[in-house]
Amino acid sequence: MAPLPPLTESLVHFLDPYLPRKVPIASLNRSDTDENLPFITLTFAQSIDSRISSSPGVRTSISHLETKTMTHYLRSKHDAILVGIGTFLADDPSLNCRFKINDDDPNHLIRPVIIDPTFKLGPFYENSKLRQAYLEKKGLPPIVLVKLSTINSNPEIESFCLHHDIVLLPLDNESAPRFQWMVVFRELKKRSIRSVMVEGGASVINSLLLSRDSSSGKPLINSLIITIGPVFLGKSGVEVSPCKELHLTDVSWWTGVQDSVVCGHLN
Amino acid sequence: MAPLPPLTESLVHFLDPYLPRKVPIASLNRSDTDENLPFITLTFAQSIDSRISSSPGVRTSISHLETKTMTHYLRSKHDAILVGIGTFLADDPSLNCRFKINDDDPNHLIRPVIIDPTFKLGPFYENSKLRQAYLEKKGLPPIVLVKLSTINSNPEIESFCLHHDIVLLPLDNESAPRFQWMVVFRELKKRSIRSVMVEGGASVINSLLLSRDSSSGKPLINSLIITIGPVFLGKSGVEVSPCKELHLTDVSWWTGVQDSVVCGHLN
Repeated sequence: MAPLPPLTESLVHFLDPYLPRKVPIASLNRSDTDENLPFITLTFAQSIDSRISSSPGVRTSISHLETKTMTHYLRSKHDAILVGIGTFLADDPSLNCRFKINDDDPNHLIRPVIIDPTFKLGPFYENSKLRQAYLEKKGLPPIVLVKLSTINSNPEIESFCLHHDIVLLPLDNESAPRFQWMVVFRELKKRSIRSVMVEGGASVINSLLLSRDSSSGKPLINSLIITIGPVFLGKSGVEVSPCKELHLTDVSWWTGVQDSVVCGHLN
Repeated sequence: MAPLPPLTESLVHFLDPYLPRKVPIASLNRSDTDENLPFITLTFAQSIDSRISSSPGVRTSISHLETKTMTHYLRSKHDAILVGIGTFLADDPSLNCRFKINDDDPNHLIRPVIIDPTFKLGPFYENSKLRQAYLEKKGLPPIVLVKLSTINSNPEIESFCLHHDIVLLPLDNESAPRFQWMVVFRELKKRSIRSVMVEGGASVINSLLLSRDSSSGKPLINSLIITIGPVFLGKSGVEVSPCKELHLTDVSWWTGVQDSVVCGHLN
């Protein structure tokens, strides 16, 4: 794999207010008020017409190499990276962190988390880049969230995960009509994950944008970091757009060689 | 109407390469090669999720006052401003230019052009801000493009337009399945319009993004100027997304108090 280009210096200062921190800043950090939740950063790259890929299941390059380095820099600031199983199957991502300040620094090991209610991962894990990265000590095996009913109906899932050092996390959401993000993130926090970077895909993003802390009513997402590439992917692309209007606050824009990055918090 | 805030200085230099010019720059100016077409700038404000309004027919404020001044500055550089009838009916826009370098400068009179195949304008023109601006010498009456069959079946249209100084431009597109932009722009050029700023709405934008010069194959649009406001308008918003993938070249980004503006040319 080609080495990442160096991080554009101006990104460090630009991103800083939107990153998880040890000493939380009250206005930026919802998890001040809920110690049971990790800091959650939602980040993705989209076209001008808010598509994250040109069609379902197709890996689409939108952002410049510069913002690819940014993504790995962001990963270096988080304990876990979360994606839906659709993204895993479409992209075969390594879900690791390749950013190092110095070449001889150790790898930052970020924990992959995969939302996979019906355990579609099984047949594809063996030959995945994710597993390859783990075998090469460049990444960690994932935490996989699977519906309890799926696990109960297929006992081999548990032995498969055990064999591959995958942490199987049962998702008891049979009665819920939609995905219960609060439950997911609380479970992750219980496993010492203090910060999660959510990278996609569209259904994860669209649903998470609207999710709120059931006690405080505040958005679950602590920070939003969106890269916009100068392309229209068109009507048949996979779209990011939540079911209702959402306003951003504390907005900053950064402009690179080709892309723009917008950071903000949800109102 | 409240006066516009002053133009942010940095916008002048930023926008310059994307504006119509007397001495054309070859790489920027398609109309070099076709003297029968005006310079066409497509400009609009959208949300992060590429919506130009929160629902059909609802005027939605997306951009900051700063970019409102930019819009009027852009108008000061064009001979005509073009919108679809839907935008006219939803927004009741004045479609004039309020930008002046000095307070005692004369108004730049930009010609409104309205695409209105079935002449829906009729009942609404009398009380429109567009007409009001004309009566107050702050704007011009529009050129209205109407289907020939509509005009033929309702002879009162001609007398109505004559009475209101509206230029009625028959659109002979009965046989065409879609809108013939080349014909529209050639007709405008014949009427000494050397530059057109297209502002919306979504069907005009989506269709124009894909339109090409039938002889050269080049995009009809010479410049694209899109303001992105930090909001998601959501699934039920009116979307801009062309029917196929389009790449931008010569891309520049500008960042203001709240919004980002991307300029480019279509590939």
